[in-house]
Amino acid sequence: MSTRSADIAEILGRELGAGRVIGAGDDRLADYGRDETTPAMLPEGLVPPACAVLCEDADEVAAVLRICAERAVPVTPRGAGSGMVGGALPVRGGVVLSTERMQRILEISSDDLVAVVEPGVITGQLQEAVEAQGLFYPPDPASLAMCSIGGNAATNAGGPRAFKYGVTREYILGLDVALMGGERLRVGRRTAKGVTGYDLVAGFVGSEGTFGVTTQLTVKLLPLPPGVSTLLAVFADVRAASDAIAALLGRGIRPRVLELADRASIDHVRKRSRYRFPDGAGAIVLLEVDGDPDALDAQVLRIGQDCERHGALDVLVAQSPTERRALWEARRQISPSLREAHRTKINEDLCVPRGAIGEMLARVDRVSAEVGLPVAVFGHAGDGNLHVNLLVDDDPADPAVKAQIADAVGRLFAETVALRGTLTGEHGVGLTKRDHMGVEQDERVLEWQRRWKAMWDPADLLNPGKVLPARRRACTE
Amino acid sequence: MSTRSADIAEILGRELGAGRVIGAGDDRLADYGRDETTPAMLPEGLVPPACAVLCEDADEVAAVLRICAERAVPVTPRGAGSGMVGGALPVRGGVVLSTERMQRILEISSDDLVAVVEPGVITGQLQEAVEAQGLFYPPDPASLAMCSIGGNAATNAGGPRAFKYGVTREYILGLDVALMGGERLRVGRRTAKGVTGYDLVAGFVGSEGTFGVTTQLTVKLLPLPPGVSTLLAVFADVRAASDAIAALLGRGIRPRVLELADRASIDHVRKRSRYRFPDGAGAIVLLEVDGDPDALDAQVLRIGQDCERHGALDVLVAQSPTERRALWEARRQISPSLREAHRTKINEDLCVPRGAIGEMLARVDRVSAEVGLPVAVFGHAGDGNLHVNLLVDDDPADPAVKAQIADAVGRLFAETVALRGTLTGEHGVGLTKRDHMGVEQDERVLEWQRRWKAMWDPADLLNPGKVLPARRRACTE
Repeated sequence: MSTRSADIAEILGRELGAGRVIGAGDDRLADYGRDETTPAMLPEGLVPPACAVLCEDADEVAAVLRICAERAVPVTPRGAGSGMVGGALPVRGGVVLSTERMQRILEISSDDLVAVVEPGVITGQLQEAVEAQGLFYPPDPASLAMCSIGGNAATNAGGPRAFKYGVTREYILGLDVALMGGERLRVGRRTAKGVTGYDLVAGFVGSEGTFGVTTQLTVKLLPLPPGVSTLLAVFADVRAASDAIAALLGRGIRPRVLELADRASIDHVRKRSRYRFPDGAGAIVLLEVDGDPDALDAQVLRIGQDCERHGALDVLVAQSPTERRALWEARRQISPSLREAHRTKINEDLCVPRGAIGEMLARVDRVSAEVGLPVAVFGHAGDGNLHVNLLVDDDPADPAVKAQIADAVGRLFAETVALRGTLTGEHGVGLTKRDHMGVEQDERVLEWQRRWKAMWDPADLLNPGKVLPARRRACTE
Repeated sequence: MSTRSADIAEILGRELGAGRVIGAGDDRLADYGRDETTPAMLPEGLVPPACAVLCEDADEVAAVLRICAERAVPVTPRGAGSGMVGGALPVRGGVVLSTERMQRILEISSDDLVAVVEPGVITGQLQEAVEAQGLFYPPDPASLAMCSIGGNAATNAGGPRAFKYGVTREYILGLDVALMGGERLRVGRRTAKGVTGYDLVAGFVGSEGTFGVTTQLTVKLLPLPPGVSTLLAVFADVRAASDAIAALLGRGIRPRVLELADRASIDHVRKRSRYRFPDGAGAIVLLEVDGDPDALDAQVLRIGQDCERHGALDVLVAQSPTERRALWEARRQISPSLREAHRTKINEDLCVPRGAIGEMLARVDRVSAEVGLPVAVFGHAGDGNLHVNLLVDDDPADPAVKAQIADAVGRLFAETVALRGTLTGEHGVGLTKRDHMGVEQDERVLEWQRRWKAMWDPADLLNPGKVLPARRRACTE
C-alpha cells in the first residue's frame, strides 16, 4: 500500500504540478482525513489518504479521475470539509480530491436570475455577492460561513430558510461534472424550468460525491426580498410553542424561517446570550417573514398576538439588521454552547412529518432517560427537521460509553422511522448513518441505489464506502 | 402480431377480469391510441395498441407489468391522455396501461401538510379537495380540469404558478412504483425534507413513464394563501410589457403568476372576450399575487403604477373570485380561440433564460416571416417559458405543408438553443421532440440517459420509443 500511495502522489505531482499535491510527510495531509464529524461516531479502521490534490480547474479534476481510475486508486471528493457524517473522509485511503481552490464566481446575471460558480465558492460569500446586486440565493445551512456550494449540492443542503424556499436541489439548474475515468458531462440547463430528458441534475444533487465530481454549477437566484422581519417568542414549554406554530400556519402565514429550541438548549445558551431569558423559559421560537416591507409590520404584529394567545412569556421583534442579528444570536449560540459545555456532542438531524414533532420530542425525552444521556433539541420546526444533540461527558472512547451512544442513536432512529420520519433531513448519510439505512429503507430500495451507483462508477472507486450499506447475505423478503 | 395481440388481451382478461380489458373490436380502443397531441406532429408508422387495461389498484398494475414482461409485450402507461407530445401513445403496439380508474384520494393531512393519492386523481379535483381544508397544492397545468396527478408526475408538469411555487417535482415527496417485470418499490418519504440515500423520486418524476408506473403518490401541501389578487395590464407591445415586468421584479415582488400574451393572441381572443381590449393592444400581462390579504391592496396598487409608468393602456384589478375568473378568461380563451380559428395549431413550449425573452420573441417573428406561418405566443413570462403556437390553415397532411411545419419547428428549436434555452419547459419530450434532443444535448449526455433507462427497463418494454432518440452510428465527438 505504501508503495502505491507514494506512487500516486508522485504521478499526480508530475501530471498536475507539485504545488497541487499534499503528500505523505506534509503536515497538512492530516487535515484531509478530518471533517466536522464527531470522531466518536466514525467507524474504526478508516485508512487515511495517501495524498490530497488541490485542483484548480475542471481539466485537473478530470485528470485526477482519469489517472486514479486507470490505477484503481480510490478518490474521495472534498468541498470545504464542513460535513458532519464523514462524507468527505477516505475509507480505503487513496486520493482526496479537494475543490477548495476552485472559488471563482464566474457570472451573476440579474436578467436571467442565475449565477455560474465553481464548486469551492463559500456559500455565504455567494450570498453576499448576489445580495449586493439585489438578488437572493436562499439555501442557508448553518455552516454557510465555511461550507462550499459544491458540498451543498453533494449533500442537498438545507437550512432554516428551506421552510419557505426549499433546499439546495431546487436551486441547482445545471452542473458540469467529471466522472470516475475522467469523462466530462454538462447536464441540466440555464432556464428556470425545463423537462428536456431525464433529470440527471437531481440525481447528482444529494449523491454525496459518489456519482461524479462537480466542477461548475449554474444556480437559480431570486429577487432579494425587499423587507425582512424577525421575531423571537419565548414559551414555557415546547407544547405551547407548537400550538402557537400550528395556529399561525393555520392562518396561511408562510414564514421563511421557523426555528424551535427546547429547554436544555435555552439553559445552555443562557449565560452566553445578551438577552435575559425569562425564568420559566422552556422553548423558543425564532420566526422570520419576508416580502413587501409595508406589509411586514402588520404581519409580525399578528404573529406576536398568536404567540401571546398561546402563552408566550415574551415576544421580541427586530427589523434592522443589527436587531435581527441579536435575535439570531440566541439561536446561533446553541450549538457552540453545547459543544463548550460537554466533552462530546452528537448531532442527529432527524426529520419527522410536521404533525409528529410533539410526539417525537416526547420520545426523545424517553430515550434520553432510558439510555442515561442528556439531550438538547433545536431545529427547523416548520419542516419537522430536529437536531437532536446527545451530550456526552464521559470518555467516548470507553467501550461502555460507545455502546451507550450507539444505543441512543439506534433508539432515536427507530422512533423516527416509527413516526414515518427519515434518518437525515439535511446532513446526509455519509459514513455515520450508512449502516442504519436498512432501518428506513428496504433491501430492494437499497439494491436499486447500488445499481444506480454502479451505473456511474462500476469499479466503486469514487467516494467508496459511503451512503449504501454492504449487501445483506440473503434478502429477507 | 395479430395472434400475439389477441393473446395478450385474452391473458390479461383472464388474469384481471374481462371488465378491465378493452380489446380489439371494442370502439373505445381507438381512444387509447390518441391524446391531445396535434396529429400532424406525430411520426408515421405508430402501431396502435392491441388492448388497453384499466387497472384498479397497484396489484393489478404490477400483474400487467409482470405478464407483459414475461411475454416481451410493450406497455405504454397512460394517465388522463392530456399530453401534448405523444408520451402516452404506443409506438410498437402492445398494451396501454391506464390508471384512470385509480382515482382515490387516500388521505389529506393538515397536520403533516401532505396528501396521499392514487395516480388517476384529476389534478383540479385534488386542488379543490385540499382547498376545502384550507390547504394548497400549487402546480396548475392548464389542463388541470382533465389531467391526472400521475401524468403530472410523469412529465414534471408546470403551470402559471410555477413562477413562485415551483413545478410538480417540488411537491412529490414519495412514490409507490411498479417496474417492468412487476417488482414494486416504495421510494421517497412523507417528511418535508430528507436526504436519506439517493433521490430516486426525482429520477422517476419527469421520466415520462419510461422507468416505472406510479401507483401511489405522497404530495406536499402548503397552507392555503389567505388572499389572492389578480391584475391584468394591457400594453401597446411586448417590449413595453417586458419593461414593466423587469421593473416590478426588480423591486423584489414575487408574483405567483406572471403571464404574457402577444398581439396575435389578443387579436384571436378579442371576439370571445367580454373585456373590450383597447384598440392598440399589443400585449397583455396577467399577474397574480398572494399572501396576507391586508397587504395585497397596497402591493397591487404599486404593481399597477409600475405598469402605468411603462405605458400600460389599461390596468384591471380583481379580488373577488368572480372578478378573478373574468380576468383569467382573457388568458384561458387564447388557446381555444387559436384552435377554433385555424385548421391546425402546433404548441411548442420553448423555454429561454428570462433575460432572453425579448430577443426570443423577435426571433420567433423572424422565423414566422421566413417560413410563412403565422404564430401566436403566450406563456409564463416569469419563467421564460413561451408557448409558441404555429397556426396552419392548409392541409397538414400535404407534404409541402408538413415540410413547412418541420422547417418552422426546427428553426424555433435552433433559436431556442442558441439563446441557451431548452426545447421543452413543461410538456416533455415524448415522441414529438425525441428526434430533436440532439439539438440541445450532446451524444454523451443522451448516452448516459439511455443507460439510466436500461437500468430500470433493460428489455426496453416500458413506454418504448419515447424521450431518447436512436443512437447515432458514430459519435461525432
